[in-house]
Amino acid sequence: MKKNKRIGMLVDELTSNPCKLFDSKHFCEKFDIAKSSLSEDLAIAGEMFEETGTGRIESISGVGGGIRYIPGISKEGIRELQAEMIEALSDESRDLGGGYLYTSDIMFNGSLVERMARIFVQKFYGLGANYVVTVETKGIPLAAQVAFMLNVPLVVIRREAKYSEGSTVSINYFSGSSDRIQKMSIAKRAVEPGTKAIVIDDYMRGGGSLKGIEEILHEFDVEVVGMGVAMVAVKPEKKRVENYIPILYIEGNKEGEKKTKFSANEEL
Amino acid sequence: MKKNKRIGMLVDELTSNPCKLFDSKHFCEKFDIAKSSLSEDLAIAGEMFEETGTGRIESISGVGGGIRYIPGISKEGIRELQAEMIEALSDESRDLGGGYLYTSDIMFNGSLVERMARIFVQKFYGLGANYVVTVETKGIPLAAQVAFMLNVPLVVIRREAKYSEGSTVSINYFSGSSDRIQKMSIAKRAVEPGTKAIVIDDYMRGGGSLKGIEEILHEFDVEVVGMGVAMVAVKPEKKRVENYIPILYIEGNKEGEKKTKFSANEEL
Repeated sequence: MKKNKRIGMLVDELTSNPCKLFDSKHFCEKFDIAKSSLSEDLAIAGEMFEETGTGRIESISGVGGGIRYIPGISKEGIRELQAEMIEALSDESRDLGGGYLYTSDIMFNGSLVERMARIFVQKFYGLGANYVVTVETKGIPLAAQVAFMLNVPLVVIRREAKYSEGSTVSINYFSGSSDRIQKMSIAKRAVEPGTKAIVIDDYMRGGGSLKGIEEILHEFDVEVVGMGVAMVAVKPEKKRVENYIPILYIEGNKEGEKKTKFSANEEL
Repeated sequence: MKKNKRIGMLVDELTSNPCKLFDSKHFCEKFDIAKSSLSEDLAIAGEMFEETGTGRIESISGVGGGIRYIPGISKEGIRELQAEMIEALSDESRDLGGGYLYTSDIMFNGSLVERMARIFVQKFYGLGANYVVTVETKGIPLAAQVAFMLNVPLVVIRREAKYSEGSTVSINYFSGSSDRIQKMSIAKRAVEPGTKAIVIDDYMRGGGSLKGIEEILHEFDVEVVGMGVAMVAVKPEKKRVENYIPILYIEGNKEGEKKTKFSANEEL
């Protein structure tokens, strides 16, 4: 096989299997090449990812080592994504009144979600998370994409305990957004005690829902090592959780305030 | 830029943006090459995709034309996926009794979901669907992946009308799986009349839920042009919908029947 095509095939297989550790033997046998040629190919692919900012290749030497592709996104890519999201959100017909905004189409747009996921993967890779956790429903596509890219299972916390989830543990928590007590429920089979999780959600106002997720995971001795949220309300300033990473900020999305304003998290 | 690296970059950008139509100018300018060189590069990438079965490149000539990558999966890839799923499902501790099986981890496994999605994209590309539709919750990651790969919006039908969905239309339908009347609700903003949809779900027994989706979409004059379901129960033989494509069949997952059996849809 020609070197050109080999590089294409290498990039295709690595990017289709993000964070999967490949034994270098796998590619040497597949391409029928020596380890030194594979190293050259990997160097070219790695350079390419670095130039475009779309990720990087990690090489782990020794027994149990191998090659792994970690998805990424360039700073320009992040700014472009944020601008696209802000433009889409600025359509005034989204304002449903009572502080509610129609955002389902944003959270269900595959291209936006794929790029949002790259931001969180870039941030959270290396924290050694065993799961990506979200609470149904709107954050599921984003959380699923982050989990896929980090090559760890997705765990979806349900609003109601379902029989098809087997034994569950439930908690009640106060949601400031809906101004009432809500319930969440997690399947006992879904998580192992003593593990680490990244929490992903579509929206946060006061952080009650994310706090609830932290608490329910705490019941299983699961530590939250990172939190990523697509859109975070500027007010209230004091949130019930810390160390969350927003992609966008939302301001003034409340009764009586005239127009909702959106701004990019420029620290990304 | 060297041809090697260029091919890698081309494959990376095409596969990260499935079914997106790129103007060939985009690549000519990015790589600073003539159209004839791009054609050569595309031929190499296309050959590579064909050899691995991971997709194909479509070239549309003329005004408004361009280049598009359509994800795919080889026959061996499908058989491998089905075997992996069957092995995972055969764990007897999944049997929750009453005909219920714990399958959340399968439907929330990113690698399995990505490959299942490729099967449906390969089947349904060309039907001109404007949306991929599912009903919450377990099928969302799969439906989101299919929608991303087809480059169309995902629409999630909710069990309860939510205020954050704006105006909604709801229907009641009979679900054989849960043996009761259930409700589903769709945001009016989510779909346009006179369009086409592909329906994706994680599980089907009698097809009541899929029939419900068909009916609620019918209210909006949206035609269902394809249905893909991860797991379909063999019994009852008579389903309430037609023309669905299963990845696996499940047999005997009912009270009194001893062991659940799984088999691959060999027509894929």
